[in-house]
Amino acid sequence: MTTPANIDQSPGSRQRPLGVAAIGYAFMGKAHSNAWRNVASFFDVPAFEQKVLVGRDATQVAEAAAKYGWAESATDWRSVIDREDIDIIDICAPGWMHAEIAIAALAAGKHVLVEKPLANTLAEAELMTAAAAKARANGVQSMIGFNYRRVPALALARELIAEGRLGTVRHIRAAYLQDWLSDGESPMTWRLRKETAGSGALGDIASHAIDQIQYLTGQRILEASGKLKTFVTQRPGEQGMEDVTVDDAAWATFWLTGDMGASVEASRVATGQKNSLRIEVYGTKGALTFDLETLNELQFLDATVPVREQGFRRILVNEPEHPYLEAWWPQGHIIGWEHTFTHQIRDFLTAIVTGEAPSPSFEDGLQIQRVLAAVEDSANNKSTLTFINTTSLVSEGA
Amino acid sequence: MTTPANIDQSPGSRQRPLGVAAIGYAFMGKAHSNAWRNVASFFDVPAFEQKVLVGRDATQVAEAAAKYGWAESATDWRSVIDREDIDIIDICAPGWMHAEIAIAALAAGKHVLVEKPLANTLAEAELMTAAAAKARANGVQSMIGFNYRRVPALALARELIAEGRLGTVRHIRAAYLQDWLSDGESPMTWRLRKETAGSGALGDIASHAIDQIQYLTGQRILEASGKLKTFVTQRPGEQGMEDVTVDDAAWATFWLTGDMGASVEASRVATGQKNSLRIEVYGTKGALTFDLETLNELQFLDATVPVREQGFRRILVNEPEHPYLEAWWPQGHIIGWEHTFTHQIRDFLTAIVTGEAPSPSFEDGLQIQRVLAAVEDSANNKSTLTFINTTSLVSEGA
Amino acid sequence: MTTPANIDQSPGSRQRPLGVAAIGYAFMGKAHSNAWRNVASFFDVPAFEQKVLVGRDATQVAEAAAKYGWAESATDWRSVIDREDIDIIDICAPGWMHAEIAIAALAAGKHVLVEKPLANTLAEAELMTAAAAKARANGVQSMIGFNYRRVPALALARELIAEGRLGTVRHIRAAYLQDWLSDGESPMTWRLRKETAGSGALGDIASHAIDQIQYLTGQRILEASGKLKTFVTQRPGEQGMEDVTVDDAAWATFWLTGDMGASVEASRVATGQKNSLRIEVYGTKGALTFDLETLNELQFLDATVPVREQGFRRILVNEPEHPYLEAWWPQGHIIGWEHTFTHQIRDFLTAIVTGEAPSPSFEDGLQIQRVLAAVEDSANNKSTLTFINTTSLVSEGA
Amino acid sequence: MTTPANIDQSPGSRQRPLGVAAIGYAFMGKAHSNAWRNVASFFDVPAFEQKVLVGRDATQVAEAAAKYGWAESATDWRSVIDREDIDIIDICAPGWMHAEIAIAALAAGKHVLVEKPLANTLAEAELMTAAAAKARANGVQSMIGFNYRRVPALALARELIAEGRLGTVRHIRAAYLQDWLSDGESPMTWRLRKETAGSGALGDIASHAIDQIQYLTGQRILEASGKLKTFVTQRPGEQGMEDVTVDDAAWATFWLTGDMGASVEASRVATGQKNSLRIEVYGTKGALTFDLETLNELQFLDATVPVREQGFRRILVNEPEHPYLEAWWPQGHIIGWEHTFTHQIRDFLTAIVTGEAPSPSFEDGLQIQRVLAAVEDSANNKSTLTFINTTSLVSEGA
Repeated sequence: MTTPANIDQSPGSRQRPLGVAAIGYAFMGKAHSNAWRNVASFFDVPAFEQKVLVGRDATQVAEAAAKYGWAESATDWRSVIDREDIDIIDICAPGWMHAEIAIAALAAGKHVLVEKPLANTLAEAELMTAAAAKARANGVQSMIGFNYRRVPALALARELIAEGRLGTVRHIRAAYLQDWLSDGESPMTWRLRKETAGSGALGDIASHAIDQIQYLTGQRILEASGKLKTFVTQRPGEQGMEDVTVDDAAWATFWLTGDMGASVEASRVATGQKNSLRIEVYGTKGALTFDLETLNELQFLDATVPVREQGFRRILVNEPEHPYLEAWWPQGHIIGWEHTFTHQIRDFLTAIVTGEAPSPSFEDGLQIQRVLAAVEDSANNKSTLTFINTTSLVSEGA
Repeated sequence: MTTPANIDQSPGSRQRPLGVAAIGYAFMGKAHSNAWRNVASFFDVPAFEQKVLVGRDATQVAEAAAKYGWAESATDWRSVIDREDIDIIDICAPGWMHAEIAIAALAAGKHVLVEKPLANTLAEAELMTAAAAKARANGVQSMIGFNYRRVPALALARELIAEGRLGTVRHIRAAYLQDWLSDGESPMTWRLRKETAGSGALGDIASHAIDQIQYLTGQRILEASGKLKTFVTQRPGEQGMEDVTVDDAAWATFWLTGDMGASVEASRVATGQKNSLRIEVYGTKGALTFDLETLNELQFLDATVPVREQGFRRILVNEPEHPYLEAWWPQGHIIGWEHTFTHQIRDFLTAIVTGEAPSPSFEDGLQIQRVLAAVEDSANNKSTLTFINTTSLVSEGA
Repeated sequence: MTTPANIDQSPGSRQRPLGVAAIGYAFMGKAHSNAWRNVASFFDVPAFEQKVLVGRDATQVAEAAAKYGWAESATDWRSVIDREDIDIIDICAPGWMHAEIAIAALAAGKHVLVEKPLANTLAEAELMTAAAAKARANGVQSMIGFNYRRVPALALARELIAEGRLGTVRHIRAAYLQDWLSDGESPMTWRLRKETAGSGALGDIASHAIDQIQYLTGQRILEASGKLKTFVTQRPGEQGMEDVTVDDAAWATFWLTGDMGASVEASRVATGQKNSLRIEVYGTKGALTFDLETLNELQFLDATVPVREQGFRRILVNEPEHPYLEAWWPQGHIIGWEHTFTHQIRDFLTAIVTGEAPSPSFEDGLQIQRVLAAVEDSANNKSTLTFINTTSLVSEGA
Repeated sequence: MTTPANIDQSPGSRQRPLGVAAIGYAFMGKAHSNAWRNVASFFDVPAFEQKVLVGRDATQVAEAAAKYGWAESATDWRSVIDREDIDIIDICAPGWMHAEIAIAALAAGKHVLVEKPLANTLAEAELMTAAAAKARANGVQSMIGFNYRRVPALALARELIAEGRLGTVRHIRAAYLQDWLSDGESPMTWRLRKETAGSGALGDIASHAIDQIQYLTGQRILEASGKLKTFVTQRPGEQGMEDVTVDDAAWATFWLTGDMGASVEASRVATGQKNSLRIEVYGTKGALTFDLETLNELQFLDATVPVREQGFRRILVNEPEHPYLEAWWPQGHIIGWEHTFTHQIRDFLTAIVTGEAPSPSFEDGLQIQRVLAAVEDSANNKSTLTFINTTSLVSEGA
């Protein structure tokens, strides 16, 4: 294993900026590139350079690199892993490519940020986690991109819960509702095939809700009961109708350490709901609600104030006092969805210089994969599943 | 002047229930009747009987009396004023009839509740107020029906302001928006003629907003600037097109004692707004907002809590701790618009037995008529008007 | 079996008004009494008289009878069943008393309205349903009080779905959230003992959500998976701490005829939620959402309009065009929670005169009891349950 | 006057990218820089380079230039106007500097974008407008930064009104509410002195509301009535208490061409309101409402659909079909406040290449200054003011 270029204890170390390469230039590649292009304009981060954008189509990736602020482009991800001037690999490629790239990059001493889900199979996710653990021992950092941990309102929610403002949390109600598959005529894509996508609404969006449940409370899922459904079983492909082999919607009921319950509903056919990740947390002393479509807002009820004046407060999470907000604009000038990626890069870069492992880790990603698998098994078996041990607790840092 | 039947200091006085007669059985008559029929089922009020309902059409009023819970009906309002078994006259007739009935009733020693506006002209309103003052000296009570003072959320708002929870109030933003005249083909009615209705949106609905501004803050309007507009100047009547001679919409900017400002907008052509009386109060330490279409809710912001957790709280004003609510249902079981009339009757009956003058008084009604007149004058003159004296302060009881 | 007094085909039949007796004067007795007292003031219903209110404590029931508009009071429910001048028995007593009273009343030829749940045990519910079927053959009507079917917004929702405005419904998301047991110090009551209450949040409030799911879609639950939880296992009783033997919260995932899914969450410890029955229905062509705390509103999204102008419409269900609303006030003058009972009495009385069986029937009530039992079994077994046959379809009338 | 470097009709013209210099690096400089840095990553715009950032403090401006993506920094704005490689001057300096810089830049053939307000005095604004007109004749473009015209929801609102979806607009209700001056202890700044800031809430934020009223409807204000108020008349400065010489709050009632009314309220002491620019437009066929704190949403009511299903639709203006949105993220992934500046730069650059004059023009800015002056005069005179002629109509392009 190579020593990471930027981990050098000698005086005068790290004389050059960190070199970054990103793999993938579709939706996630665009969002990550935007974060790299802007993070240093708002946050105090170590010097870095947007060196290479990697993609399969030479012309398209060159164009994307120019557009998104990368100095060069390349078509072979292995070439950037071999480069000494690259210190960070940001993997925005589809899930089935994650394991191979991430393991190679970590072995080469590169810090790795990988989009969720960690991998399409549990086996791959386990290999990746092992590779990350080994690399971490050598000062090489790794992180999985559950970017909604960096929504300021959700970061504030976590703080309030950690401070005991909700008392003991009893149950969480979560849903992630979209409607882009509502139309039965909408065409077949790789996202609707089990072999390329792993799963449907479950892995794609329920995973965010599951991560939040654990992130907000600091607890870990112990028991899962699930149901999956594909409403539109065939869709028009290039060679006629093709079978959809992933779920359109998923339901799960969980029980967590700390004796708290949680429900999750995920749908890509919830007509009229565009990108509505909703979370409600009920505790003995208070409650919180959130919706990603109004991500600058957190509703907080403090049950310790007199009943006469109790009510959910709409906190516009847009003040310098709020997580990440001091960097942006004056109060009330709301931020957008993409800013969560900028915060993620900020935290990842900070972890690299401080040497503290960033969160969420590959272990966290793997644990969520296990929960997703349990939901699927439960759905198939029509029974509730219980995890045998609770040792690998969800990491708590943010 | 007759001594009121029920004001008898001797032992054994008021051996019989209070006798009530209501005049008018249209919209307001129906709402008041509902309040009389139900008030004793929820509140602890002195015994009374729904004796007579008065209206011009003998058949219709008999039918309405039977339907709304009145023992008898009559066609001549003078007949009920002459009756010894009638103690209370509830005037729900159109505004141009108020003065004559109220003055006669008060002279006969009957307690009088009159719907707003007090009268169609200032001259009539002044005569009524004088009659009320004279009768009050004899223990005869009178009250004007600004029923929104009895919306629990607004009563709570007033309490919070009086307790100093908003600090010094700086400005109030009010509007009353409806759309029932939005359609230009909607027919001519007596409500659209100056001689029968007095004014349009100004007197009908802006008057409620003006009353609230003064009621909530305990202050009095000193300066008024206004604008009136009739968008649909002719409407189909029974003999062809007729001129609309009242305003469809009104705007006013006020300055009040206590150095606070207020704006009011009233419209009956605000397409899509059904019955939206909105009030926002901004003070140095907090703020309140309200909308009549969601009348069980009050939004309250306490600016003395840390900025990090500040926000408008949606208080569901539906707890036993809230004004009037103990009488109704368990928390969260919302009440409707008509309940404000039930509360009004409760407070009116209570005033009759305690002998304390109920609020709002005819003086309050007159003062609002003066404000409305000032808005109209200002609109005609295109200049701001200032009241010469501020002696007759708005009464503060509730 | 006696022939019902008012079912007489001969000329001159039913010369007297229907005689009504209500049993119970607590929360539900108060709400039903209010409906009886007011229904004829708003709706065109057959003549009836509020004859007797029945309760165990002679003094208290006499007082309640006077307050709520009943001519007499009584302490023995059997006495009113024996009376010839009583045609209707309205059962507002606790669930464990339903079966005995209802069966006796039906046998005596009295029309019966019974509060939900139908009974505390399936066995009792089955006996009641058999009695109702037998009585119905003799023209004696029976109905169970799922009053939320009479929320105008939900009645409108049902109409829109029946008209195909949502296309094929795919999934429903429902919750009923309250917080009156959130406080762990809140005392023990009969509602928290299995033997008196049957179940907790499941039977009390989830039952409403389950009824709505079937009512709105006209479909029937086939498969159930559930989870129950008692968070506060002991509460202070009169003789020290006592065991709570019903659930504080319940979760269920259902599959219905018509191949649609549904999730239900019910909680009495959802801090800050007062009476929030929420329903979301997602179909191929549109969607609907509702919350009981703002019961005058229905959110409707029509996915057949161009995407550019699509959005959830807040319909203020307060127009003469809307179910039940013509009877009340002009547009935008909102109604309260208790009005749903008035509508229920209206529909029940109408059914009695028309001879058409009212809905929901005892069969509907029984089927919901079966669903509740399936949720409980599933929770105990940690497995999903499937109903063996689907013959007893939910009735569809309103 | 110099010919603009990039206006060359010969073949091979504009072989180099447009050179941009920005003046000012405070709040607006940061927001404009962000737009320049990102516009080409999302929109198809002509090539340009972020060449120079200008500011008074050499160290600070050099740091800001590095942070915000500018190649160089400078301390003298005149130096950049002299440079041949600079084609565009983006003026983000305070209002009292606008006139001198803009006039010099236009005379030198530079395209000019200037932040609102156009200037602090009408005299300066008139000189600037004359300079812009002269330069325009030579192909030199100029634009004023009323960036809220580029909020997608407001751009959509304008389209819907222009398409007649609201029928004839009757009245508009606008407010801009903030609370950053609510605290009376908040210190004195240049924004609170008339000589540096021109006016307070009126010029700073009411101006946005006024621009929207005219932009959305395509009409022009003819009549104005106003009121201004300074609630906190002294604030702590560096040498003790200083007089605040601008308004904290402003109220105005307008009448427009097209016989429509409008009200505007602006406050910087509206406790709890952070950045709430609210606009409601009522027409004969529909209505629209908007709030800047939820800028991704537009509420639209179409009064031509049956009353039974009418309601304000919450359109999440986040679809590829919506103005500017195709460039950003998939549906439901909301954008932030700063994106409006990116859209503004896009439109400004497009205008430069197409040669079409961008909107809003300096003439538009001047006209708004005149409206603001009229409000101030009306407030001083306590009378309504009417504009003598209506010739300089508000420009309509977007």
